[in-house]
Amino acid sequence: MLRTSLALLWSCVVIAAPAPAAAVEGPMISIAIHGGAGVLSRAALTPEHEGAYRADLERALDAGYAVLAAGGSSLDAVVAAVRILEDSPLFNAGRGAVFSNAGINELDAAIMDGRTLRAGAVAAVRHVKNPIELARRVMDASPHVLLTGAGAEEFALEQSLTLVPGSYFYTERRWQQLEQARRGDRAAAADIDIGYFGTVGAVARDRDGNLAAATSTGGLTNKRWGRVGDSPIIGAGTYADNASCAVSATGSGEYFIRAVVAHEICARVRLSGVTAAAAAQAVVHGTLRKLGGDGGVIVVDRDGHLTLAFNTEGMFRGARDASGRREIAIY
Amino acid sequence: MLRTSLALLWSCVVIAAPAPAAAVEGPMISIAIHGGAGVLSRAALTPEHEGAYRADLERALDAGYAVLAAGGSSLDAVVAAVRILEDSPLFNAGRGAVFSNAGINELDAAIMDGRTLRAGAVAAVRHVKNPIELARRVMDASPHVLLTGAGAEEFALEQSLTLVPGSYFYTERRWQQLEQARRGDRAAAADIDIGYFGTVGAVARDRDGNLAAATSTGGLTNKRWGRVGDSPIIGAGTYADNASCAVSATGSGEYFIRAVVAHEICARVRLSGVTAAAAAQAVVHGTLRKLGGDGGVIVVDRDGHLTLAFNTEGMFRGARDASGRREIAIY
Repeated sequence: MLRTSLALLWSCVVIAAPAPAAAVEGPMISIAIHGGAGVLSRAALTPEHEGAYRADLERALDAGYAVLAAGGSSLDAVVAAVRILEDSPLFNAGRGAVFSNAGINELDAAIMDGRTLRAGAVAAVRHVKNPIELARRVMDASPHVLLTGAGAEEFALEQSLTLVPGSYFYTERRWQQLEQARRGDRAAAADIDIGYFGTVGAVARDRDGNLAAATSTGGLTNKRWGRVGDSPIIGAGTYADNASCAVSATGSGEYFIRAVVAHEICARVRLSGVTAAAAAQAVVHGTLRKLGGDGGVIVVDRDGHLTLAFNTEGMFRGARDASGRREIAIY
Repeated sequence: MLRTSLALLWSCVVIAAPAPAAAVEGPMISIAIHGGAGVLSRAALTPEHEGAYRADLERALDAGYAVLAAGGSSLDAVVAAVRILEDSPLFNAGRGAVFSNAGINELDAAIMDGRTLRAGAVAAVRHVKNPIELARRVMDASPHVLLTGAGAEEFALEQSLTLVPGSYFYTERRWQQLEQARRGDRAAAADIDIGYFGTVGAVARDRDGNLAAATSTGGLTNKRWGRVGDSPIIGAGTYADNASCAVSATGSGEYFIRAVVAHEICARVRLSGVTAAAAAQAVVHGTLRKLGGDGGVIVVDRDGHLTLAFNTEGMFRGARDASGRREIAIY
């Protein structure tokens, strides 16, 4: 498996930019998104599948960018992008979330505002159509950062958010993955496991120089015991600080928690003076790898430069900025 | 309120050490504990109350130190100390946990091993007598880091841990605090609010130079919506890394999450080369204070030096090391 050489390359495919490309000096608006990282055999990903993934990633990328281009905030941009990925049945977040061992969907999400260091997160919610919107409400309308389970849904109702029946999250593919996981049939599970980790996220910089990060996930197929991964953990899967950078992560969550990956990348930028790209590389290929962790991150720095690093075969991702760059890539 | 000058002073009371004090050069075994930080008016804390708090803090400190002195691990030492504070009805953890808005006790805890960066945590458990033991099992016997709610209790049962009925956590004082909070009677609540934050924790260094941190809490009186604070969040309320230090925090949890306080202190030691004491001071009186956060931390560095910082009026705390130092302090 090619693990190291793929990092930092927004490889392969550049979509024709709608506006003429132009070199932009200095800070700029920009957004990056991801739809999960993991083992992505080219054989398993048919051209048809690939086209569907690319289409949804493009829609999310463009929706987030449109917010920024209209002068909107980075917070609104990352929510707009993540919402679309949550609504897609293809990614492991919102609609397409994986099933737990009990055959239910338990969703986690987080958002952070780099300007104020305010943050909101939810864990183990079961009936919230767009967990990222609930995380935003936790940040904006509660004195808390992290709400969990049925209590978080009580808060959602008080905030007049749409709750949906559990059946909303049923997709045939995820159910099959659960059945295969229950049988211990890892080979078969991998076969239909396009984007197994499948977490989604976005980072952005707006015109005012404010950074934001957002992440949403269904967690692990066949998870038990109320397991919560890194996505809703501020510092692990999600972090934003105007003084350094904004990060959204995807991968084997436990390792991201132990290495406090998102905050570690920001801390290195702030304390060691390295670039966000160098920090992301060192943490994903160094610290995380040494622990045994797989996955990747997307990062935007104070000037709007986008970077990513992943130590898996592939990572669904997209990047767009004011220079005219507009890219979707998988491997 | 005296907020700054109290920090780093293990003020007031030095207990007669059972062994003759001796200067120890180089690394040593050591342990620090806390029982919460907050508004502690000297008027509210009667000599009788104070004696009871000191007695339980001493028992916890000595139990943890005994493990280290016998050659035991820092992990075993912090669990031994925290267990005693959980079993005491005086602190807001285990037995003495505060009540949520629904009149129940929801407990959070975390532990981390500085040698391996392994960690375990539980959030919103209701029937686990010693949440710190369950966190330890999550670390040792599951592939996960964070388990929540009923699922975490399912795991506890599989691990043959003792579950107790909710009534085990009933204490008259905490129930009165809930009723006063429900009435919005903040003044009365403060009056019996000795150690309102009341979270407990321990950090230690063992003979092999391994660091560990542990934290346990009942969270906030009258909490709603499944709110989870910083205690079970690796990086926020709890962190340990042999390369830098081990930290356990207590205070207004949301701010500790947003500043990723425990990991931030360790990152400054590791990346900026400052002492653990300087890092703790800067984060608690700088970063945290600027955000509006109240509370404190206990820290042990690689050489076993103990330090703490708090920006509140008081913090229940204790420290003991191989030099013969053995102290309990409140203000």
